[in-house]
Amino acid sequence: MAILTTVEHSDDPRIDDYRDLTTADRRPDRPGGRGLVIAEGVVVVRRLLDSPYPVRSLLGVPRRLDELSDDLAGVDVPAYATDADTMARAVGFHLNRGVLAVADRAPAPSLDDVLARARTLAVCEGVGDHENLGSLFRNAAALGVDAILLGPGCSDPLYRRSVRVSMGHVLRVPFTTLDGAWPASVDRLREAGFTVAALTPSADAEPLASAGLGGRKVALLLGAEGPGLTDEALAAADRRVRIPMASGVDSLNVATAAAVAFHAVTGGG
Amino acid sequence: MAILTTVEHSDDPRIDDYRDLTTADRRPDRPGGRGLVIAEGVVVVRRLLDSPYPVRSLLGVPRRLDELSDDLAGVDVPAYATDADTMARAVGFHLNRGVLAVADRAPAPSLDDVLARARTLAVCEGVGDHENLGSLFRNAAALGVDAILLGPGCSDPLYRRSVRVSMGHVLRVPFTTLDGAWPASVDRLREAGFTVAALTPSADAEPLASAGLGGRKVALLLGAEGPGLTDEALAAADRRVRIPMASGVDSLNVATAAAVAFHAVTGGG
Repeated sequence: MAILTTVEHSDDPRIDDYRDLTTADRRPDRPGGRGLVIAEGVVVVRRLLDSPYPVRSLLGVPRRLDELSDDLAGVDVPAYATDADTMARAVGFHLNRGVLAVADRAPAPSLDDVLARARTLAVCEGVGDHENLGSLFRNAAALGVDAILLGPGCSDPLYRRSVRVSMGHVLRVPFTTLDGAWPASVDRLREAGFTVAALTPSADAEPLASAGLGGRKVALLLGAEGPGLTDEALAAADRRVRIPMASGVDSLNVATAAAVAFHAVTGGG
Repeated sequence: MAILTTVEHSDDPRIDDYRDLTTADRRPDRPGGRGLVIAEGVVVVRRLLDSPYPVRSLLGVPRRLDELSDDLAGVDVPAYATDADTMARAVGFHLNRGVLAVADRAPAPSLDDVLARARTLAVCEGVGDHENLGSLFRNAAALGVDAILLGPGCSDPLYRRSVRVSMGHVLRVPFTTLDGAWPASVDRLREAGFTVAALTPSADAEPLASAGLGGRKVALLLGAEGPGLTDEALAAADRRVRIPMASGVDSLNVATAAAVAFHAVTGGG
C-alpha cells in the first residue's frame, strides 16, 4: 500500500527526483541527467506501476492520485500529494496531466532471451528522434511486435518525451541494444530463424503487400525518416520491401511506415 | 517573377498578413481569425506555390528566399526579405524555418468532381485534432488516397498547424465537406460506386487484411482517436473492418490507423 504524504513546499527534498525535469530526465551520461524513468499522467503512471521498473515514488495532485488508488494498493512506495502550483515550481513547468511517477532503470533483457520468445521484431538504425521512437513503440505494442532491438544511432527509449509519446509502451515492449559490429550483428537474428526484411522506399524493393511476410518469424529493419537505412544495413537484409508511395511525396514518418509494415507481418490475411 | 523587397521594421503594413500568427491563422469565424492559408518552411512554401491557393506574398530571411528562387521565378507576388528578429516581432514568435507564405483560401471542389475522379477516399468523422488531421493528409498523399471528405466534427485542414504537420499535403490532396444529413450523406458515395468501409476496433469487424479491399473503389470511414466512429456512422457503412490489435493497448493514432488501412486498399498484394 502506497504511503500518501502531503508535500507543502516545492523545495522539499523528498521530491528531489522531480526537480528540473527538463534536464533531469536525461541519461546519466548527459549534463544534469539523472537517468530516471519518468511517467506522466494517469495512463502512463499505471503502465509504469505495472512494469519491471522499480518505482521510487509518485507526485501528484490529490484528484489524480485518487484515480490511481486501486493501482497503488499493491505497491509500497511514497505518493506525494501537492497542489498544481507547487508541483509546477518543483518540476520547472506546468503539467496538465497532474501526476508523475519516477522509477529506476532496470537491466535490459539479453538478446538471447528476446530471440527465444519473439516472433516479430523491429530493428532500428539511426532512429534518433525521441518522438518517432516513442510512436514506434506505441505502434509495436498495438500491432503485436514482440520486442525492439536498437542498432546504432537510436535515441534512448526511456527519455521522458519518448515515454509520453509511446503512451507508456516503452515500459511494456521489451527492448535491448543489438551489440556487436553493425550490421553484421543482424546475422544473429537470421541464425535464430528470423527473416531479416529491410523497409526501404527503393523502387527495386518488393512491394510489402506481396512479399508474403505474414506468418513468419520476421525482423524488420527500420531506418530514420529522411536518410532511411544505410546501404550496409540494406545489404545485410535477406529481403528488401517497400510501401508503394505516390510520386512527389516525402516518405512516411518512420513510425507510420513501421505500423504499415508491422500490420503486414502480424495482421493476418 | 516575384518582386523582392527588403522590410526593415516589424510594423511595416506590407507584412500585416503575418502579424500575430497564433491568432490570425484561425478561420474568419473565430476571434482574430483572418482565415488565410499560411505555409511555414521551404518545403511547405514550395507546395503552396504549386497549389491552387492564390499566394499573396512571402516573408523570409534572405537565405531561405534564395533557396526558393527557382520556385519564385514563375510567380508574380511580393517576397519580403527581413532578418529573423524582425520576422519574430511581426509574427509573435520565433520561427526556426525562416520563411512563410500567405495565400487566400480557394473554393473547395464539388463532391461530384471529387467522386468522378477518385478511386480511394477517406471520409472523416469527428477528427477535431489539427495535428491528427494534418498527419492524415500526409499519409493520404503518400499512399495514393485521391481525396478527403470531411464529415461533422472535423477541424479545419487549412489551420496553420495542420498545414505544417501535413508537410503541405493539405494543399495538394483535394478535400471538401460532405454536406447533407450525416451519415445518410455517405449514400452518395455508394451510388457513385464506392464500397463504404468503416474502420473500427470492434472485435466483430472483419480483419482488414482479409477484407479484400484492394483494387476496389473504396471510401474509408475514419473516426476520432478515442471515441472512434459513432454507431450511426458504423451502421451506414457497407463493411466494417478492423486492424487486429494486441489486448490491453489503446487504439492506434487515427492517422496511423488510417495509413495501415490506406495501404490495404492502395498497396496492391
